[in-house]
Amino acid sequence: MANLSSIKQHPTLSVFLPLFHTAWSDANLSELEVKEFTKYIKQAKWIDKAEKPHLLTKINAENPPAASELHQWEREIKLAIADATKIEKLSDISLFLAKKYLPDDLSSSFSNIKNDLDKVEKNLGIISKEAIYLYTQGHDTITTSHKTQSSFDIGQMQELLDGDQSEIIEKVKSIITRPEFEYVDSSNLNAYREQVLKWCKILAKEGLGAMAFPKKYGGGGDMKAYFSIMETLSFHDLSFVIKFGVQFGLWGMSIQSLGTEKHHKKYLRKIGKLQLPGCFAMTETNHGSNVKGIETTATYNHENKTFIIHTPHPLARKEYIGNAALHGRMATVFAKLIIDEKDYGVNAFVVPLRNPKGKLHQGVSIEDCGLKMGLNGVDNGLISFDHVEIPLADMLDKYASINENGKFESPISSDNRRFFTMLGTLVGGRIGIPRSGLSAAKTGLAIAIRYGNQRRQFGPEGGEEVPILNYRMHQRRLMPLLANAYALHFALQYITFRFLNRTKDDMQEIEALAAGLKAFTTWNTTSTLQECREACGGKGYLSENRIGSLKADTDIYTTFEGDNTVLMQLVAKGRLTTFKKEFGEMNMITLLNYIADQAKTSIKEKNPFTVRKTTDEHLLDVEFHLSAFHYRDRAIVSSAAKRLKRHIDNGMDSFDAMNVSQHHLFNVGNAYIERVILEQFVLQVEKTTEPTLKATLKKLCQLFALSQIEKNRGWYLEQGYMNGSKTKAIRKMVNQLCWEIRQDAVPLVHSFGIPESCIGAKILRED
Amino acid sequence: MANLSSIKQHPTLSVFLPLFHTAWSDANLSELEVKEFTKYIKQAKWIDKAEKPHLLTKINAENPPAASELHQWEREIKLAIADATKIEKLSDISLFLAKKYLPDDLSSSFSNIKNDLDKVEKNLGIISKEAIYLYTQGHDTITTSHKTQSSFDIGQMQELLDGDQSEIIEKVKSIITRPEFEYVDSSNLNAYREQVLKWCKILAKEGLGAMAFPKKYGGGGDMKAYFSIMETLSFHDLSFVIKFGVQFGLWGMSIQSLGTEKHHKKYLRKIGKLQLPGCFAMTETNHGSNVKGIETTATYNHENKTFIIHTPHPLARKEYIGNAALHGRMATVFAKLIIDEKDYGVNAFVVPLRNPKGKLHQGVSIEDCGLKMGLNGVDNGLISFDHVEIPLADMLDKYASINENGKFESPISSDNRRFFTMLGTLVGGRIGIPRSGLSAAKTGLAIAIRYGNQRRQFGPEGGEEVPILNYRMHQRRLMPLLANAYALHFALQYITFRFLNRTKDDMQEIEALAAGLKAFTTWNTTSTLQECREACGGKGYLSENRIGSLKADTDIYTTFEGDNTVLMQLVAKGRLTTFKKEFGEMNMITLLNYIADQAKTSIKEKNPFTVRKTTDEHLLDVEFHLSAFHYRDRAIVSSAAKRLKRHIDNGMDSFDAMNVSQHHLFNVGNAYIERVILEQFVLQVEKTTEPTLKATLKKLCQLFALSQIEKNRGWYLEQGYMNGSKTKAIRKMVNQLCWEIRQDAVPLVHSFGIPESCIGAKILRED
Repeated sequence: MANLSSIKQHPTLSVFLPLFHTAWSDANLSELEVKEFTKYIKQAKWIDKAEKPHLLTKINAENPPAASELHQWEREIKLAIADATKIEKLSDISLFLAKKYLPDDLSSSFSNIKNDLDKVEKNLGIISKEAIYLYTQGHDTITTSHKTQSSFDIGQMQELLDGDQSEIIEKVKSIITRPEFEYVDSSNLNAYREQVLKWCKILAKEGLGAMAFPKKYGGGGDMKAYFSIMETLSFHDLSFVIKFGVQFGLWGMSIQSLGTEKHHKKYLRKIGKLQLPGCFAMTETNHGSNVKGIETTATYNHENKTFIIHTPHPLARKEYIGNAALHGRMATVFAKLIIDEKDYGVNAFVVPLRNPKGKLHQGVSIEDCGLKMGLNGVDNGLISFDHVEIPLADMLDKYASINENGKFESPISSDNRRFFTMLGTLVGGRIGIPRSGLSAAKTGLAIAIRYGNQRRQFGPEGGEEVPILNYRMHQRRLMPLLANAYALHFALQYITFRFLNRTKDDMQEIEALAAGLKAFTTWNTTSTLQECREACGGKGYLSENRIGSLKADTDIYTTFEGDNTVLMQLVAKGRLTTFKKEFGEMNMITLLNYIADQAKTSIKEKNPFTVRKTTDEHLLDVEFHLSAFHYRDRAIVSSAAKRLKRHIDNGMDSFDAMNVSQHHLFNVGNAYIERVILEQFVLQVEKTTEPTLKATLKKLCQLFALSQIEKNRGWYLEQGYMNGSKTKAIRKMVNQLCWEIRQDAVPLVHSFGIPESCIGAKILRED
Repeated sequence: MANLSSIKQHPTLSVFLPLFHTAWSDANLSELEVKEFTKYIKQAKWIDKAEKPHLLTKINAENPPAASELHQWEREIKLAIADATKIEKLSDISLFLAKKYLPDDLSSSFSNIKNDLDKVEKNLGIISKEAIYLYTQGHDTITTSHKTQSSFDIGQMQELLDGDQSEIIEKVKSIITRPEFEYVDSSNLNAYREQVLKWCKILAKEGLGAMAFPKKYGGGGDMKAYFSIMETLSFHDLSFVIKFGVQFGLWGMSIQSLGTEKHHKKYLRKIGKLQLPGCFAMTETNHGSNVKGIETTATYNHENKTFIIHTPHPLARKEYIGNAALHGRMATVFAKLIIDEKDYGVNAFVVPLRNPKGKLHQGVSIEDCGLKMGLNGVDNGLISFDHVEIPLADMLDKYASINENGKFESPISSDNRRFFTMLGTLVGGRIGIPRSGLSAAKTGLAIAIRYGNQRRQFGPEGGEEVPILNYRMHQRRLMPLLANAYALHFALQYITFRFLNRTKDDMQEIEALAAGLKAFTTWNTTSTLQECREACGGKGYLSENRIGSLKADTDIYTTFEGDNTVLMQLVAKGRLTTFKKEFGEMNMITLLNYIADQAKTSIKEKNPFTVRKTTDEHLLDVEFHLSAFHYRDRAIVSSAAKRLKRHIDNGMDSFDAMNVSQHHLFNVGNAYIERVILEQFVLQVEKTTEPTLKATLKKLCQLFALSQIEKNRGWYLEQGYMNGSKTKAIRKMVNQLCWEIRQDAVPLVHSFGIPESCIGAKILRED
C-alpha cells in the first residue's frame, strides 16, 4: 500500500486528488494544466513549503503517476463521493478529503482554499458536473431515458392499413404461419425449389392462385384480392412469392389478358389449380428492356395452319424464365410473327415445353440459369426453340389474329399501339412487384427497429448503456425509411385502385404511375434493407436474422418487370405529354410537339416571403409541402422540355438530345412520383378520423415530406425556392420528427401485422 | 391487295401517304393534325372534288386505317425512299409517289403542290429529318458512334498503380491463377470451407502468410508487402482473403503486437506456416463497437499463477469469431483482468480451444454462426468459456503484466490510454479491409464497364442499337465510381505509407485516417457493387457473373473492424482536437476544451467572385477543387464545435449534446476524409510525368472532385460558397467528364490488372 501511505505521509496531496486525477484522466497533462497547477501550488500559503516539491512531482507531464497510484486516487475520490452529502464541484470532494486527511487547523480554513480551487477548475475549463460523472453511477441523460411510448392502438392502425382486405390478408396469414410453412434451408437448391412448388400447390388448393381468374373458370374474380395475396405472401419466403406470381400472375394472366375464350376455357382452370405449371417467356439474352427487339420468330404456314417457333441464334434464347428449369409444362412465348416473309411484330403464343412426366418436347432445349444472388427457390431457365410447330389456335389472339385467308388482322391498326396495348395488359406485374418489395422492406424495418430498441451500446460516463435507437444517427437512418414505408403503402393502394378502375382514357397515366411507383418503391426496398442490415451490425449479416435473404431476393426487383432507370425515362416521357399519348414508345415527332407546349409553361413566381420562412408551423404545414412538391414537379418538366427543344432547335439529332437529357428526365420522373406519393399520403391523413391514428400518420407524412425536400435541397436552393436558413431549419425539423417518431417506431412496425414466424429473426426478443 | 388497288383507284392519296402515315405512326391523330389536313384538302384546287371525301376518310380520328393499309403505305414510302435520289422532306417522298401514280399533267405542276405540303409539314411541327428516320436504315448519331479509344498505355498505367509492389503483386497473381484456385461452389458449405483452408495453406507454404512477421521467426519482415498481398488476393475469393486475414493478420499480429518475445518465439513460426490456426476473439454478443464493455473475465490466481477465463452469461460469448467454428486451435481472447476482485480493464490472453485432432478443450464450447449473407468460406463461431485455466505466461504482456507480487503493472498508467494503445496496434486491420474492399469494387467495375461497352439496347429510329455505356445515365452511374476507385487507390497507398512510417506523435492522426478511409472506402464498395449489379441487369443477378458474391461478401466490410458510423464519429472527435489527443476515447472535459478552441476559428470570407464563377477553366482548376474541399472541412468542424459549445453552455448534458450533434459530426468526419482523398489524388497527378497518364489521371481527379462537390452541393449552396448557376455548371461539367472518360473506361478497368480468371464473369467477351 505504498500509495495510500503516500497520502498519509503527504496529506496535502489529498486536496488535489480530484483536480489531478481529472487532469490525468485523458492520460496527458496539457501545458495549461501544468501551468495552472504549478502557479497555484507555488503561491498557496497554506501548503507547507516542504510539501510543494512532492506535489509538483505529481504533475510532471513527462512522468505520470503509476497506474496503481491513479487507481488509488480514483478509489479515494469515489469513497468521498459515496460518503459526502453534497458534491457539486470537484472542490467539494477536496473538502471531504481535507477533512479526512488534513490536520484540523487547516481544514477549518478550508472555505478560502475551496474558493481558490474553484478558480483553478474554472481556468481549466472544467465543467464540474461532467467531471464528477467520471466517478459516479447512475448518470441519467435525455438520450438514455428516451423510450417506446405508443401513442396509438396497434390493432386500429393495422386495421387502417389492411382496409377492406383484412379478410383475405388474415386468410393468407393463417396459411403461411402453419408448421409446414416453416422456412427451409435455401442452400439445398433442389429441396428448396421443390418446397417452394409444394407451398404454391397448397395455395392453389386453397383457391388463392386462381383468385384473379374469372369465376366461370374456377377463379375468384377478384384482382384486388390477388394483389393483397402477393403483398401478404411477401412477409414469407420471396422465392415462394415469385414462383406464385410467375404461375398465376404472369403465365395465367397472359392467357387471360392476351388470349380469347377458347384459351380461357382450355387453360385457366388447370393453371389456377397448378395442374398446368407454366412460364412467361418474353425476355431474351440480347433483348430485355428493349422487348420490341426480340428475335424469336413465329412463322405462319397457311397450308397446315401452324406456326413454327424458332430461336435464330443462342443470344435470342429466352432467358431468366421462371418455372422453366424444372416445373413449367407450357409457356406464353413472345415472338415476331412472320407471314409471307413479312414481320408483323411481337405477338404471343402458347408453346408446350414438357409432357406431364417432365420430358422436354421435341425441339425444346432448356438450360438452368443456375445459382442466382437470391430467389433460388425459383427455377429460372434459358429456353431455346428449334423449329417447334404449334397450331394456329395457340396464338393468343385478343389483339391480333390471322384470318381464314391467312392474312394478319387486328382491331388495332398501329403496330406500335398494338404492341404497347399488349404490354399494357401486363401492367399488373408492375403493381404486384412493388407491393411485394414494400412488404420485404417492412419486414426489414420491423427487424432493425425492434433490434435498435433492444440493443444497447455505449452510454454516458457512469450511466447505463443506451438503446441504439436513441442515437440521432440511428434515427436518421431508420425513421425516414419508416415514413417512406407508410407513404408507399398508401401510394400503392392508390395505384391498385386506379388500375382496378381503369378506363381506356387514363391507361397512359396508370402505366406511368405503375412504372414510376415500381421504380421508386423497389429502389426504396433496396436502400431500406441495406440500412437495416447495417443497423443490425454483425447480427444483420447472419442468415438466421433474415435480412440477408430479404436483401438478396429483392435485389432483382429493381430490374425485373422493367429496369428502373428505363422505367423512369418512360415516366418522364409520359409526364412531358401529360399522359395524353402512347406512353411506352412515342416517336420523336409526336414528343417534340408536346415538348414545345411544355416549354411554354411558365412556372409561378417564387414567393419571397416563403423562401425564407422558417417557423415550425410553416415547416410542418401540409400546404407548404404540397406546394414545394408541385413546384418541383412542374418546374423540372418545364426545364427539361426547354432543354430538349433548345437542343433540337440547334439541330441536334433527337436521339442525342434525349440522351444528353437523360439525367434531367430521370428527375422529371422522380419529381412526378414523389408528388403523387405525397398527395396520397396527405389524402390518407385527411380521411383518417380516429385522432391518435391521425396524429401519428400526420407526423409520418410530415417526415416523409421534409426528408424528401431535404434530399432535394440542392435543387430547391439552386432554384431559389428556399434559402439556406430554410433548408437548415428543415434539417433540424427532420431531426426533431425522427426523435419524436422513435417513440412510436416499435408500435408502427408492429402495425404492419407481420406474423412473428414470418419475421423469423432470432435476434428479436418479445417487445 | 385491296389497299394497293385503293391507291390505284384513288391515286391522289399517294401524295398524302408520307404525311398521313407519319401522323398515324403514334396511333392517334391530334386535333391539330385533323384540322390542318382537312383545311388543306378542302382548299387544294388540284384535287378532284370527287376524291376529297375519300381522302378525308383516311384522317378520321375515330376510325383509323386498317393495319394492312398502314403496312401498305409504309411499304410504298420505303420503296420511294429507296428509289428516289434526294429525300430531305416528306414532300420529296410525295413528289416521287406523285410521279409514280398521278397523271403526267398533275405531276408537272407538282413543285407548287410541294410548297403547300411543306407548309403543312411545318404547321404540324414535323422535323423532316426525324420523320424520315422512321423509314430509313443507318440512322447514325453521336450517341451511337461514341466508343472506346484508349488514350494511354494500359501496361504503363498498371505499373503506376502497382508501384514498387509489382513483384509481390505478380507473385500473388501467379498463385491465384493456378488451376487449383478455380472457384468452387460456395453453396456446399463444408467443401467450401475446406477449400478456403487449403488455399490459405498454399499461401502459407509460399511464405505469404508470414510476410509481416519478423524474419527471425520465419517471416518476411515486410508489412507493406502484406497489405499488397491482401489487396491482390481480394481479386479472388473474398472468404479466402478474410480467412487469410484472420489467421495471419488478426491472430498472428495480435501475438506480434500485444505479446512479448516469449510469445513470438513460441507461436509466430507456427502461425506463419498455418500449423497453428487461431482466432482473434474480441467481439461479444453484447459488446461490439463498445469493446470496453466486454464481460469475459480473466481472473488471476496468484497462488498457482494462473488465470481463469470465463464467460459470465450467454450474451458475453465471443461472437462472429473467424476460424472458430472449425479450424482454430487457439485464440487471442480479450477479457477483463481481475486481480483481487479489482477490475483492471481489458487485456489479451492466449487461450487454447482445440487439440491438434480438433477436439475442444475442457471448458470451451463453440457454436457455429451458421450461414451468413456472404463469406461462407469462413467458419465463424461463438465461443464460450467455462472457467478455463491458463498459465500466467499466456497473458499477452506488452502493455500490462502482473509482477512477482501478483500486482498489476503497466508502462502506461492511464487505463484509457493503455486500452486504446492496445487497440491502436490493430489499426492495420483498418487498412487491410478497405484495400480488400477496393479490390472488390474494382472487379465489379471491370465487369459492369466492360459489359456496358458490349451490351447494346435501344437505338435511334432506323439505326443500330447503342452500347449502354453510351447512355448518359449509365455513364453517370459508373464513371464517378470509376474515379472514386482511382482516388481511393492513391488514398489507401497514402495511409499505408503513413502507417508504415508512424511515430508515437502522429498515431492519433493515423488512426483517424485509417478509421475514416475504412468507412469511406467500404461504403463506396457497397454502393459501387450495387450500381454494378443494377448496371448489368439480370446478368448481374446470376451467380456466374460474380457480382452477387462480391456484394454479399463485402457487405459486412462496413461493419467489421469497426462499424462505419461509429468510426466516422471517432474521426470527427479526432478532427475536433486536431489529432492532438487520445483518439478513441476522450472524456468530455478534454474534448470541450478543444471544442472551445475550434469554435473560435473564423473561416475565411467567401470570395464573391468565385461564388459565381462558371468558366470551364475555373471549374476544372485544381486550386478551386482544393479550396472548396478545405473550406468545407474547416467550416463544418468549426460549426460543429460552435454547436456543441452552445449546447453545453446552455446546460445540456454533454452526452446529449454529442448525441444531438451526431449527424453534424458525421459530416465532420466525411468532409475531412474527402479532403484528404482529394489532396492525395492531386499529389499523384502532380508527380506523374508521362503525359498521357497524367492527362488521364487529371481528368479522373477532376471528376472525383466535381462529383463530390455535386454530392455536397446542398451544403455549398446553404453556405453561399457557390450560387445556383455555379452548381448547375458543375453538374454539366460532371456530365461532360463522364462522357469523355467513357472513352477510356475499358482501358481504365484493364489497368487494375485483375486476372481474367479472377474476374470470372461469364458475360464478358474479350475486349
